[in-house]
Amino acid sequence: MRGSLPRDLAGTVAAVRPLDEAAVQAARRRQGRLTKPAGSLGVLEDVSVQLAGLAGRCPAPLPHPATVAVFAADHGVHAQGVSPWPQEVTAQMVANFLAGGAAVSVIADHVGASVVVVDVGVAGPVPTGAQLLSLRVRDGTADLSTGEAMTRDEAHRALLAGVRVATGLVDQQVGCLLTGDMGIANTTASSALIAAFGAADPAAVTGRGTGIDEGTWNLKVDVVRAGLQRHRVAVAAAAEDPVGVLCALGGLEHAGIAGFVLGAAARRVPVILDGVIAGAAALVAQALAPDVTAACIAGHRSAEPGHAVALARLGLRPLIELDLRLGEGTGAVLALPLVQAAARVLRDMATFADAGVSEQGGPDGRATG
Amino acid sequence: MRGSLPRDLAGTVAAVRPLDEAAVQAARRRQGRLTKPAGSLGVLEDVSVQLAGLAGRCPAPLPHPATVAVFAADHGVHAQGVSPWPQEVTAQMVANFLAGGAAVSVIADHVGASVVVVDVGVAGPVPTGAQLLSLRVRDGTADLSTGEAMTRDEAHRALLAGVRVATGLVDQQVGCLLTGDMGIANTTASSALIAAFGAADPAAVTGRGTGIDEGTWNLKVDVVRAGLQRHRVAVAAAAEDPVGVLCALGGLEHAGIAGFVLGAAARRVPVILDGVIAGAAALVAQALAPDVTAACIAGHRSAEPGHAVALARLGLRPLIELDLRLGEGTGAVLALPLVQAAARVLRDMATFADAGVSEQGGPDGRATG
Repeated sequence: MRGSLPRDLAGTVAAVRPLDEAAVQAARRRQGRLTKPAGSLGVLEDVSVQLAGLAGRCPAPLPHPATVAVFAADHGVHAQGVSPWPQEVTAQMVANFLAGGAAVSVIADHVGASVVVVDVGVAGPVPTGAQLLSLRVRDGTADLSTGEAMTRDEAHRALLAGVRVATGLVDQQVGCLLTGDMGIANTTASSALIAAFGAADPAAVTGRGTGIDEGTWNLKVDVVRAGLQRHRVAVAAAAEDPVGVLCALGGLEHAGIAGFVLGAAARRVPVILDGVIAGAAALVAQALAPDVTAACIAGHRSAEPGHAVALARLGLRPLIELDLRLGEGTGAVLALPLVQAAARVLRDMATFADAGVSEQGGPDGRATG
Repeated sequence: MRGSLPRDLAGTVAAVRPLDEAAVQAARRRQGRLTKPAGSLGVLEDVSVQLAGLAGRCPAPLPHPATVAVFAADHGVHAQGVSPWPQEVTAQMVANFLAGGAAVSVIADHVGASVVVVDVGVAGPVPTGAQLLSLRVRDGTADLSTGEAMTRDEAHRALLAGVRVATGLVDQQVGCLLTGDMGIANTTASSALIAAFGAADPAAVTGRGTGIDEGTWNLKVDVVRAGLQRHRVAVAAAAEDPVGVLCALGGLEHAGIAGFVLGAAARRVPVILDGVIAGAAALVAQALAPDVTAACIAGHRSAEPGHAVALARLGLRPLIELDLRLGEGTGAVLALPLVQAAARVLRDMATFADAGVSEQGGPDGRATG
């Protein structure tokens, strides 16, 4: 079924490759010559090695400049009462992003990342603005618990929209992509996708979103379970036809982010994933192109239980764990300085030889401070 | 015994106060009006509230500009063979800091923090430089396992050196202080201090430093245990006379950092703590002035087991957990963008009223995305 992808998308998927092993080894060797005990920068060293392997050279170019793409869309499943927020908040928040008043706007500005907002499927009118990319596929999805969320053609168009956003940014010399999202009720669709790709029980991957009560949580679990049951044929074929699961249960922003991640990986540019929505979308991308995770860095682990399940399946260790559960890309932009610092360390630190620093003389060839 | 502090130091200790409760409440209320579900920025919200309470106004001034002070000193206990690194690496790394080639130099540059190196007790000659503060109290400590590491007068002078570094930076309008350290064998002294203040067994708080083998680790635990046994009278009186424990077991950089933290707290400026050395030093500061933790933010949790014990006793939650075990201030500078982002969010985000965004209508008055 992967063969049934439209040609542009199939080309992107085919371009996704694993890390370059020679650059990985060169980066590990260089880390060992820098003026610090071997391994003492922990996960930061791993990130620097990944960046080198992705770029195919050591040290890698700096992951700079950086842009977070906030994919916005609405969800038919909102009608089931899974969220206490009115649906029009999606469009209102798009306006807030464009005005610079949202959390992701403020944090992105602080870390030097630019923001683009991608309307891939908001239900109502949104304001225009230089930062807005109007790539709307439809006015929100249909209700995943009563039918398919979107058609296969719509899913393909939303995936391609994401690829094109990534490609366009890379063509503008953006060196690091970050995922963001906005869509009232999108944690419900995320839980359904994670349950489908992770073979997990809905109750284990459905969270309190941003703070629903027990009754609403029970309803949300029931809605996810109903969606999985209704679409059980698609779910059973998730590995062979991931787009089928996306059509059945996903959101247009999930499709857009999956395409964005594939586009970044195809162009060998790192992509920092935000929270549970990005995690769910990355599972779709991974099912299409298993090596896509070579380009992915998990910015953080959110408080949503499904996110840990998604990260485990993606094989990614999050850089930040601060009980964030906002979305928008906030967890990704917060991680950007860590990723850039990792690259700077490998590029800019002195070696023992350069600095005239003595090396350790311990019996095991390692050291203690 | 706290009354026996020299007058300058006693004045600093007396100036350390808890958070301003009115500003704390104002910050919590403001967080609730910003365009995001209440609490959805997790620990970042807590940091913003702490900064407001410390400054006594909401929103707090931005923690900017920032300076990391790397306190460098040598340790007599090095003679016991607790580290495979030669002692001269301390001075060599001071040169590396001044040349900008060390990890902390590179990461500080990336996050926009400046670096000062404080020679509070290196054993040999160090180069001069605009970034070097020469406040050496003595040429390294004595061996803690065979006698007192330093005299009470020396401990007071090193504590005051740290206070003066903090005060000098605040006088230059530095808005955020960060701790750094360099000193071969300083994890041994840190383990001893943490065991003393945390009433912990040496084996539970002594780590592999930056990678010693089993035999060296056993030796290191024995050395820490011997130090605690030799100085058991001082250890038993840790709560009443923390400087007595510092004299017995500490390093000159521990004393300097403890003074630096007290100086920051007295001037109501936040101080981001680095790893296990800072944690051990902060225990001394906390024993002298329990409210000092109001000014402290734990930049990270290192891989050293003693650090978790210290953080628990300090009541601090680390912002980053990436298996770092380098020291120098690297974990503190990596956390700086997170702390600054927390302050920016509280100051700069739009409120629901400002942005025309609808609030949630859930039965519990909270929300889900």
